[in-house]
Amino acid sequence: MTRQLRPAPGSDRSGATRLAGHAGGSATAASRVLAVLDAFGPAHASLTLSEISRRSGLSLTTTHRLVGELRAWGALERGADGRYGIGLRLLELGALAPQGLQLREVAVPYVDDLHQATRANVVLGVRDGSDVVYVEALRARGAVRLMSRIGGRWPLHATGTGQVLLAFADPQVQEEVLSGPLKAFTPYTITDPAALRRTLAEVRRTGVAAAENHLTADAPALAVAVPVRGAGDEVVASLGVTVAAGATQAQALVPVLNATARGISRALGAPSAQPAVRRRP
Amino acid sequence: MTRQLRPAPGSDRSGATRLAGHAGGSATAASRVLAVLDAFGPAHASLTLSEISRRSGLSLTTTHRLVGELRAWGALERGADGRYGIGLRLLELGALAPQGLQLREVAVPYVDDLHQATRANVVLGVRDGSDVVYVEALRARGAVRLMSRIGGRWPLHATGTGQVLLAFADPQVQEEVLSGPLKAFTPYTITDPAALRRTLAEVRRTGVAAAENHLTADAPALAVAVPVRGAGDEVVASLGVTVAAGATQAQALVPVLNATARGISRALGAPSAQPAVRRRP
Repeated sequence: MTRQLRPAPGSDRSGATRLAGHAGGSATAASRVLAVLDAFGPAHASLTLSEISRRSGLSLTTTHRLVGELRAWGALERGADGRYGIGLRLLELGALAPQGLQLREVAVPYVDDLHQATRANVVLGVRDGSDVVYVEALRARGAVRLMSRIGGRWPLHATGTGQVLLAFADPQVQEEVLSGPLKAFTPYTITDPAALRRTLAEVRRTGVAAAENHLTADAPALAVAVPVRGAGDEVVASLGVTVAAGATQAQALVPVLNATARGISRALGAPSAQPAVRRRP
Repeated sequence: MTRQLRPAPGSDRSGATRLAGHAGGSATAASRVLAVLDAFGPAHASLTLSEISRRSGLSLTTTHRLVGELRAWGALERGADGRYGIGLRLLELGALAPQGLQLREVAVPYVDDLHQATRANVVLGVRDGSDVVYVEALRARGAVRLMSRIGGRWPLHATGTGQVLLAFADPQVQEEVLSGPLKAFTPYTITDPAALRRTLAEVRRTGVAAAENHLTADAPALAVAVPVRGAGDEVVASLGVTVAAGATQAQALVPVLNATARGISRALGAPSAQPAVRRRP
């Protein structure tokens, strides 16, 4: 059956080398398919065939063939301008992620309440490795510039929601992040491991993360986040709001955030979020 | 490079045959990757390795290898129970679909307003071939059973949002749907091509689709939908609400639906949704 594949031309070699990490060994046919998908990103949502070829490190011939297959399946779409974008089939599949949009399904009425009560940007994030990925993001009209959207991904150390997830993650995950490079997005991003370690201890002590301008410096923003717990009382998500810095004190947002996070945790079956006092029958 | 692939065992043949349609010809390595992803669906969000193998028609050996690669890349995740699910990397990628969550970004404040005003289930759908795919879905607490969620996919003829998209689609798309099988979901689903043709003409005339119990019969539901227009005044999406049948007359929902759809259309730059009268400077 491998014979039915066109032989990959030699010009794929550089791409194959670069891609070796994906497959955990030598480049495979699967890794080439994934390299085509990897060419797309928030800043590269619409690409020409040659841009996909360049960004994936695959030859034009191979790119053309793979793009054709991915398009037939629905992973890619071709716009009226001839450029390629991600297809709705991937949105459909991505929506099945158990800790993704399924969590959103449970959380959305509560997140909506929080959005109404605060008129702020609201995000719900889950941990994926050393990143936070947003599974819900409601944008306030006229609010601070939004760095968050469904599917948005940021390093854990750089956002309030991420810091909550990191503070309650396994020590092994924390040590991995603390020992790795801590990228600076603004002069306020925590990049010193010792400072991050102190911040995480404080988040665990208070149950709240407050990050000012860690992600953007141009529009002063304050992100406040609290944990959401699952059926085993483990932290499964992080609920955060972002407001213009100065407009609201972080402390003022904590009660409504905690009340909302508790509602979501209860809906997820978290024991600690069940009512302490039960009505008599 | 193809030599680096393990030869596909003969037991893959049935899968390969079944998958030929994906690749538009003989089964390829890419089609096998996509077959693994195809194994997952709303009713199959969590699968064991052997379930993936069976559903994809691939041998256990091939499935094991591909699942490993897809997991390393983030397309699949392994839960605490050892079962595999869709990974957050696919949610992240799927969120880049130009007519998907990017449209949602623009629409969400308006959709939220509609949700608040009606307290109903609200969906925003776009056409993908002969289906409608929901890019936003807000569920009313205590509302009728929800058949809609982000990433949800239904045939155009069976839902109000789908009928709007079909009514304003190219005649070629309409003829394809009208000539194909029209699946019945309930006794009320329109399955007669002539009846569907009349319905589509009515939707074009009135600008509204009203579908009663076309998708579910157990919880009587009324779906009302109107078009959303883009920068070229073409219909790019469909905005719909679902309420318990009898609770509200369809006609009563039309003004608020139209006002909301016009807001989204204006935000998308639709000429017909720009203000007719401008204030003096």
